Amino acid sequence: MLLQEQIKRIIYLEDKPREQALVELLDKFQFNRAVERISTTEARGRVTAVPIYAALSMPHFHASAMDGIAVHAETTYGAHEKNPKQLIEAIDFHYVDTGDPIPDEYNAVIMIEHVQERGNKTIEIIEPAAPWQHIRPVGEDVVSGEMLFSQGHTLRAVDLGALLAGGMTTVTVVKKPVVAIIPTGNELVEPTLHVKKGDIIDFNSTVFYSYIEQWGGTAFHKGIIKDNPELLKKAILEAVDMADIVIVNAGSSAGSEDYTVHMIAELGEVFTHGVATRPGKPVVLGKVKDTIVIGLPGYPVSAYLTLEWFVQPLICKYLGVQVPKRETLSVQLGRRIVSTMGSEDFIRMNIGYVNGRFIANPLNRGAGVTMSLVRADGLLVIPSQSLGFEQGTEVEVELYKPVEEIKKAILFSGSHDLSIDVLASFIKEDDIQNDVISSHTGSMSGIMAIKKGETHVAGVHLLDSETGEYNIPFIKKYLNQDNVVVVKFLQREQGWIVPKGNPKHIQSIEDIVRHNLLYVNRQRGAGTRLLFDFFLQTMNIQPDSIHGYNREMYTHLSIAAAVKGGSADTGLGVYSAAKALQLDFIPVAYESYDLIMKQAFYESEQGQILLRVMKSDSFRQKLESLGGYRFENIGEVIYETSG
Amino acid sequence: MLLQEQIKRIIYLEDKPREQALVELLDKFQFNRAVERISTTEARGRVTAVPIYAALSMPHFHASAMDGIAVHAETTYGAHEKNPKQLIEAIDFHYVDTGDPIPDEYNAVIMIEHVQERGNKTIEIIEPAAPWQHIRPVGEDVVSGEMLFSQGHTLRAVDLGALLAGGMTTVTVVKKPVVAIIPTGNELVEPTLHVKKGDIIDFNSTVFYSYIEQWGGTAFHKGIIKDNPELLKKAILEAVDMADIVIVNAGSSAGSEDYTVHMIAELGEVFTHGVATRPGKPVVLGKVKDTIVIGLPGYPVSAYLTLEWFVQPLICKYLGVQVPKRETLSVQLGRRIVSTMGSEDFIRMNIGYVNGRFIANPLNRGAGVTMSLVRADGLLVIPSQSLGFEQGTEVEVELYKPVEEIKKAILFSGSHDLSIDVLASFIKEDDIQNDVISSHTGSMSGIMAIKKGETHVAGVHLLDSETGEYNIPFIKKYLNQDNVVVVKFLQREQGWIVPKGNPKHIQSIEDIVRHNLLYVNRQRGAGTRLLFDFFLQTMNIQPDSIHGYNREMYTHLSIAAAVKGGSADTGLGVYSAAKALQLDFIPVAYESYDLIMKQAFYESEQGQILLRVMKSDSFRQKLESLGGYRFENIGEVIYETSG
Repeated sequence: MLLQEQIKRIIYLEDKPREQALVELLDKFQFNRAVERISTTEARGRVTAVPIYAALSMPHFHASAMDGIAVHAETTYGAHEKNPKQLIEAIDFHYVDTGDPIPDEYNAVIMIEHVQERGNKTIEIIEPAAPWQHIRPVGEDVVSGEMLFSQGHTLRAVDLGALLAGGMTTVTVVKKPVVAIIPTGNELVEPTLHVKKGDIIDFNSTVFYSYIEQWGGTAFHKGIIKDNPELLKKAILEAVDMADIVIVNAGSSAGSEDYTVHMIAELGEVFTHGVATRPGKPVVLGKVKDTIVIGLPGYPVSAYLTLEWFVQPLICKYLGVQVPKRETLSVQLGRRIVSTMGSEDFIRMNIGYVNGRFIANPLNRGAGVTMSLVRADGLLVIPSQSLGFEQGTEVEVELYKPVEEIKKAILFSGSHDLSIDVLASFIKEDDIQNDVISSHTGSMSGIMAIKKGETHVAGVHLLDSETGEYNIPFIKKYLNQDNVVVVKFLQREQGWIVPKGNPKHIQSIEDIVRHNLLYVNRQRGAGTRLLFDFFLQTMNIQPDSIHGYNREMYTHLSIAAAVKGGSADTGLGVYSAAKALQLDFIPVAYESYDLIMKQAFYESEQGQILLRVMKSDSFRQKLESLGGYRFENIGEVIYETSG
Repeated sequence: MLLQEQIKRIIYLEDKPREQALVELLDKFQFNRAVERISTTEARGRVTAVPIYAALSMPHFHASAMDGIAVHAETTYGAHEKNPKQLIEAIDFHYVDTGDPIPDEYNAVIMIEHVQERGNKTIEIIEPAAPWQHIRPVGEDVVSGEMLFSQGHTLRAVDLGALLAGGMTTVTVVKKPVVAIIPTGNELVEPTLHVKKGDIIDFNSTVFYSYIEQWGGTAFHKGIIKDNPELLKKAILEAVDMADIVIVNAGSSAGSEDYTVHMIAELGEVFTHGVATRPGKPVVLGKVKDTIVIGLPGYPVSAYLTLEWFVQPLICKYLGVQVPKRETLSVQLGRRIVSTMGSEDFIRMNIGYVNGRFIANPLNRGAGVTMSLVRADGLLVIPSQSLGFEQGTEVEVELYKPVEEIKKAILFSGSHDLSIDVLASFIKEDDIQNDVISSHTGSMSGIMAIKKGETHVAGVHLLDSETGEYNIPFIKKYLNQDNVVVVKFLQREQGWIVPKGNPKHIQSIEDIVRHNLLYVNRQRGAGTRLLFDFFLQTMNIQPDSIHGYNREMYTHLSIAAAVKGGSADTGLGVYSAAKALQLDFIPVAYESYDLIMKQAFYESEQGQILLRVMKSDSFRQKLESLGGYRFENIGEVIYETSG
C-alpha cells in the first residue's frame, strides 16, 4: 500500500509552469455571472454588472450658484456706476440662496455682494447681468441619459454620490462569487488556545476566508472533514452545488492520507497536479460538475501563495475586473540567494532603506513559516531557469507595504532580545510613523550589517575571551574605520533555562557534562554562543563532550521553547525568555548588551527618538516588570570610531 | 438682517492655510481611545490596540516535516549502501506523515523515499539520520511569548493566521471612531428618483458615510435637519454625546441660512472658519463639549475634499495609524492652467499615456461637478503662491487610479456622441483590461489633440462649407504631415431637439428666427456648431438674429437637457440625445462622424481591438436600438496622410 503510494507520488506530481496552469484553469472556468440589485448606499467596493445611465439630471432644475437675486438679464441692461438701476422685489427680482431654483421668469443671478439695499423692497445695481450668469443649468453635473459607469467598474465612495445625483437609488452589481472552503485532516482542530499534542490549529481556513472577502468573493466553511474518502466525497459533492469555486485544504500532495487529487479525479477531472514553484508545488486544479475544485497545500505559506495565484484570478474573472498588481521596487540584495533550476522560487524579503539604498534580505524560506509572510516587506520571484543571485545584485521585488513605510522604518539587526520588541512598541507609540523592523541575526552579523550599510542599529553582546571585556574590542577590530557610535543599552542576565522546578538540578556546565544532559545551543556568531564557548574554554571542556552542541537556534525564545517542549534539558539564555514560557532560570552572569549605530543615524531625528525612548521612565518600568535587566548609564555614548 | 449677514460674511470667512488649520484641529482633538476584544476571524482591517504576544508556539510540538519514519538518530548510525541497516517498526521506528508529532523517544525523521520495505514490519536504510533532521521543532513558526504585532498595526488576512497559530482566538483592537453626519437644508430630500423642482438630493451623506467606513470609522445619520437654528442645536447636542466627530453639511458658508458656524460658536468654540483653498474654502472647524464638530461645504467636490483633509486625519489619529498617501506621477500639462494667488487650487485631471508620455488635462473645475471627481485620474495641487502652469510644464499629480490602468486606457477626444460610450462599454466587455477615457472637447479640439500627441483617437464631424464635404478637407489642412489614418465610423442624424409634441412647431431655422425662439448652441469648434453656422450662411441669416446663439453647451445631452428644462426652445443635436430625455426630434441631415488615429495606434493591439469591436454585429445592433445612425462602410480606412 505504501509502496503503491510512493509510485503514485513519483508519477503523479507534475512540474507544470504556473502561468500555463493558470491559463488552463481560467479557460476551464465556466460560470453564469449572477447579478443583483442593491441599495446604492451599500454599494462601495461592488462591481457594476451593466453600464449605468443616469435617470435624472443633476441639478434637475436651473439652480442659483450664488446667494443673491434672480433677475431677467434684459431688465439689468444699462446699469452703470454712474447710472445705477433700481429693481423692485417680486416684480424685477427674487432673492435666491445657493442651490435655490431660478424662477421661470428669470435667467440670471446677481451676487448679493453686488446688490445695494435701498429699502422699500427696492435694491440698486451698478452693472448689468449677462444671461445665465451664476446659474447652474440643468445637467451641469450629471445629464439624464448619460452613461455614468460602464460595466466592470468597482464603485468608490464618490461614485455613489454620482449614482444618487443621477437618481439611481439602486444599482445592478455582480453577485459575489461563492467560495466553499473544506478543511481536511484528522489532526485539525478549530482555532483554540487549548491544544493537545498532535492537534493542528486550522488557521488556514480563516486566512482563506479573509483573502476571499478582500478580493470581492464571499466564503463559507462547514467544519473540518476527517481524512476519510467517503466524508471528503460527500463534502465536495455538497460544496460544488452551492459554490462557484471549492477549496480543499490540504491533502493535495501525494502522501498516504492525501485523498484530494484522487477524489477530484474520481468525481470529475484534474487539470493539474503540481506546479513548478517553491513553495506551492503540491496544488491540485480540477473540476467537479462544472465547479472548479482546488486542492491547496497544507503548509501556510504554500497555501496562501497558491490561493493568490489561482483563486484570486478566478474571483476577478467572475467579477469582470482586473487582477490588481502590486507595486514593485528595485532593491539590492544584502545576501546571496540560491535557487534551483526548474522551479520558480518565491522568497519573502525584508527591505530596509539605509544610506539612500534599498537593501533586501531573505526571511526564513520554510513553507511552514507563516511569520515569514507576516514580516515580509516584499516578495522576490526567481524565474525557474535561474540559479539565484549574488549578494549586491539589483533585483525587482513585489511590495507588500507602501514604499513610504519601508523608507521610514528603523532597521535593527544583531542579537535578539525581547527588550527590542518593547523598544519598538514604545517608539511607535511615540510617533505612529516610526516602525522598527528587526532581524535576529546574532551579534557578529549585526556588526557586519553595520559595516556593509545594511542596518541602522545593531544590538551586540560579544565577550572578548582574552580580556573579559564586552563589545568594544570587537568594534575596535571590525568597525574602526566606520564612523560608528556605541550607545550603552542594557545589562542583561544570562543563565540556564530549565524546566519548572529544575528537575535535573542544573547549576553549572559541569552538571551538564557529568549527567550527559541534552543541551540546545545558539547559532555561530551569537553573543550567547560566545559566552558559552568562553565558559567551556575557561573550564577546559571540549565542545564535543556537550550533547546537542551542534543543534543551533536563532533566538532566546527558541531556546526556551526547546526546553519547554522537552527536546533539550537546558540552554543558555536570558531571563525574560524563561519567564515568557514559565520556565525556571539559573542565573550565570550579567552581560553588556549595547547598541551600535553609524554617526549619521545617531544624529538623525530617528536616532534621537530611539535615544529619547530608551532613556524614558516608561520603557524602564516596562523592562523592570519583565525582570532580568539592569540599566546603568543607559543611552550614554561609551565609544566612537572615526570614519 | 441681510446686511448684517453680509458684514458677518466679510469679517468672518478666513483664508487660513489648510496645513495650519489641520495642525490646530489635530491638536484640539482630545479623545479616549476605546478598545474592544473581537474574534480574530473577523479582525481583518482592524487596528491592534496593544502589542500582541503569542500565547502558544506553532508548532506546539515537534512535528514531522516529511512523510517518513521517526527514528532515534543514534540507532541509524553506521548505515551505508554497502552495509544497510534494518529497523523494526514500533521498536526502532514509527511511521509518520507530515505534521504528525514525533514520539518522545525519537529525534529524527527519514523520508519515505529513502526507506526500503523488507516485509515483516522491517525496513532497511542505507544512510544514517542526523539528529533533528526533517523535524519542525516547537516554535519554528511562532514562539509562545513572541511579540507578533505592536500596537497600531492594521491586521491583514495573513496576520489572522499568525494570531490563530499563536493561540489568539480574540484580539484587542481599537474601536472604530464614531462619526455622526447631520445633513441640513430645507431643500434636501433623501435619495429618490422622484424629485420636485427645488429638491436637492442628499447624496453627500452617503458619500461621507462610505468614506468614513473606508477609512476605518463608523458613521451614522439620523435624517435631514431643516434650516432652523433650534433643530440644528438639538441635533448637534445629541450628536456630540454619541459620536467622536460630528459633521454638519452644509450651512458652513456665510449666507443668510448658514447657521452652522454661529451654532458651533454658541455651543462651543470655532477654531477655523474658512481655509485658503479652491474649492473647499467655506469649512468650519470647531468643538462642542470636547467633541470635534466640522461644518463641511455643500458643493460635493468641496465637501469630499474637505472631508479628506480634515476628517480622515482625525480618524487615523484615533486609530493610531498613519494617514495613507496616494502615489504620485509626473505628467505633462496638455493645457495651460491658471490659479489665483493666496489659495491652494485642487484641479481634477484626466491623464493619458500617449507616445510614451503622460499627458494631463484639467476636468471641469466647478465645485458642484461631482463627475469631475468621478472621472478624475488624478489631482493637481497648485500651491497658494503660484499663478498656475503653462502648457507643457511637468507637474506632479496625486493618482486616483493605479498607473497601470492609466497606461492601458484608450484616449478618445473630439466630438461627443453616445455611440462612444457604447463603444467603450463593448471594448471593456471584449477585455476587461481595456478602458476608454473620453473627453468631450469638440471636433476641432480633437484634431488638435491628435496633432499634439495628446489622444489616441479623435471623433470628428466637420462640414467644409466650401465643398459640403465632411472631415477630409480639415484633415488635409491640419494633419497632412502627421501620419494619420481616418476610419469611417457612423453617419448620424442631426436635427432640432424640441419638447414633446413640438409645441412651437419648429421645422427649420426660419421658424426659429421668425418666432424669436430661444436657441441653445454648441461651443466653438464643435461639428454641430459648424453645421448650424453652415445653415445660417446658406440662408444668409446673421448669428445675432438667433436668440441664445452665444449660450454654449459642450454635449448633445446638455442641449437636450436645456430643452427639457425649458431654458431653451430648441437646439441642434443628435437623435439619441433627444430620445434619452424623451424629447422630440425633427431630422435635418445625416453627417459623417469619423475617427482619426495615428498610424501607430491604428496598427497597435488596442487599435485593432477598437476596429474589431466597431465592426461587430453586437455593437451595430445596440446602436440600431438607440436609433438615428447609419453604418455604411464602418471600419474602413477612407484616408491616410504620411508622416
